[in-house]
Amino acid sequence: MTDFKSWVHRPAEWIKAEGPSSDVVVSSRLRLARNLEGFRFNQKLKASDRREIIGLIETAVKKTQLLKKSSFLRSSELSELEREFLLERHMISREHAEEKNENAVAISSAEDVSVMILEEDHLRLQVFQSGLKLTEAWQKINALDDELEKNLTYAFSLSLGYLTACPTNVGTGLRASCMVHLPGLVLTKQVHKVLQALAKLNLAARGLYGEGTQAAGNLFQFSNQMTLGQREEEIIDNLERVIRQVVEHEKEARRLFAQKRQTKVEDQIWRAVGTLKSARVMASGEATQLLSLVELGVGTGLVKSSLTLEDLHGLFLMIQPAHLQMASGAGLSPQERDEARANLIRDKLSGIQL
Amino acid sequence: MTDFKSWVHRPAEWIKAEGPSSDVVVSSRLRLARNLEGFRFNQKLKASDRREIIGLIETAVKKTQLLKKSSFLRSSELSELEREFLLERHMISREHAEEKNENAVAISSAEDVSVMILEEDHLRLQVFQSGLKLTEAWQKINALDDELEKNLTYAFSLSLGYLTACPTNVGTGLRASCMVHLPGLVLTKQVHKVLQALAKLNLAARGLYGEGTQAAGNLFQFSNQMTLGQREEEIIDNLERVIRQVVEHEKEARRLFAQKRQTKVEDQIWRAVGTLKSARVMASGEATQLLSLVELGVGTGLVKSSLTLEDLHGLFLMIQPAHLQMASGAGLSPQERDEARANLIRDKLSGIQL
Repeated sequence: MTDFKSWVHRPAEWIKAEGPSSDVVVSSRLRLARNLEGFRFNQKLKASDRREIIGLIETAVKKTQLLKKSSFLRSSELSELEREFLLERHMISREHAEEKNENAVAISSAEDVSVMILEEDHLRLQVFQSGLKLTEAWQKINALDDELEKNLTYAFSLSLGYLTACPTNVGTGLRASCMVHLPGLVLTKQVHKVLQALAKLNLAARGLYGEGTQAAGNLFQFSNQMTLGQREEEIIDNLERVIRQVVEHEKEARRLFAQKRQTKVEDQIWRAVGTLKSARVMASGEATQLLSLVELGVGTGLVKSSLTLEDLHGLFLMIQPAHLQMASGAGLSPQERDEARANLIRDKLSGIQL
Repeated sequence: MTDFKSWVHRPAEWIKAEGPSSDVVVSSRLRLARNLEGFRFNQKLKASDRREIIGLIETAVKKTQLLKKSSFLRSSELSELEREFLLERHMISREHAEEKNENAVAISSAEDVSVMILEEDHLRLQVFQSGLKLTEAWQKINALDDELEKNLTYAFSLSLGYLTACPTNVGTGLRASCMVHLPGLVLTKQVHKVLQALAKLNLAARGLYGEGTQAAGNLFQFSNQMTLGQREEEIIDNLERVIRQVVEHEKEARRLFAQKRQTKVEDQIWRAVGTLKSARVMASGEATQLLSLVELGVGTGLVKSSLTLEDLHGLFLMIQPAHLQMASGAGLSPQERDEARANLIRDKLSGIQL
């Protein structure tokens, strides 16, 4: 059995706040969609095919440098809470977590690499980096892809590229995305302009947990829409260039805010601190939103705190429902979670003076 | 010129929190409506009549024990801010403060007695006491009434009693009211039952600043509706008996709350403290509502504080717009007031630990 409780406090790569522009770009993520030749796509697979595919991929995964020491987890061995926990850590997707049939995932100990098996495609390779590090992520995922291909035969067409279950992923099978924290642009009401500009560039803006989710806590996920007709490096360069511009806009908004000392914005930030330091019951959405303001306050020097960006990013993660339950070692009712969340936050923010 | 700025911090009788049940009954107030024989009611008066009435009453007022050292203030000598200030201190009514024609008010230095001249009636005698002290208030206002009558001839009918501009006040001309703080009944959602019961007893429930105003900060003003067909002592006994029951209900709600430690109520109280200790901008209504919760928290021992009930009642007063401006010595824009209010509250609550 995997000791997930010890994972709660381990510093997952994507919350480390170490890379370039990590005060705005929380993390960079790449994923490659791959399928095995000789098998149908997932929806048409028999149980025996699923077992065979998982076995083939497990063997291949264990032979790679990046994942030879990874945790290889089959869904049948995981509780619902554990799958929810992995979802909150972005190691698996909502679709993968809720799949009724057997699936699996390989996760590196630094949580910078995961391979979802039998998600929408047979394989979904993922690499995470903190900060804006798409190029580094590309080198890593490309190496992993090459290593896996030594022991797996991918479904590939000379004219189309990699074949995928959904036509939108055909070609490179690459999705590049960055999770960006834009409280400055949100508070100065400029974020809609940015989102409109991104849409024109064929980039998608999503919430924190992927497609169909809302932006919570001023966190947005920007990604490429096109997987066909562009080389991987072009896709990545294109996204990275746009993200750099977004970062500049966000930093400018924060600079202006720090200079102009807008009372109404400061009021919002301080009230966020006051509420987080005092509440006894707090839902996840409210906590995420208020912590975003605290991060802005600490980042701009308005709020003095010894909390680092990594501490704050870690807190965003630890206040999620499955993390709270994993940390407590027991299932918690929604009411108990809201209390545990409030207690955890008060404790972590106790050093901040109002 | 009256030095109103020095009044800002003087302990007005009705905020002293000294009388019986003063943790629930902030203050008791009586008023008598009187008119002078030989003059028309206010709306029909010429300016010369108004001057004459003010002069006659001033002379009579200065001969009474209770008001011989009072401040006698003519509206023509008061700025709009000063009248608003007196309104916030309950020394004059909204109607009196906004009257375009000359009027006046006599105010005792303890602010336990005021006589409004040319409000709806020629005279409106008012006595204030902290806590539930209607009987003491009655002795005081009755003595004042007798003393004034030595030098003034009241309009009186043997069949109807004292004649008043509005028929609803004819008879005794007495309105008895108590300002009660009912956060326990509001938070436990029992207050509507209490209000319904009061209505059946022909008692009115109003907001803090009289007829037509909303209950803010869980503060309610309960008063008799009938002025005719009952002796003054009956009116007062009746109200006092009912208020005592309301006090018991409120205390029971607070006791239950203190015993049961309801997390959601505690959450509201602590969030109120957190918001008051952190906000940089705060409107009057929000501040009043949050301070009510703080008073409940301090009163039930949940929130540890060296602040007394008098401090808190004083704060309810000092955060009003005219008080903030009087204290600052300058006119303030609404935005500046909201900032001054937030600053004052943070300062006063700085001793409370979250």
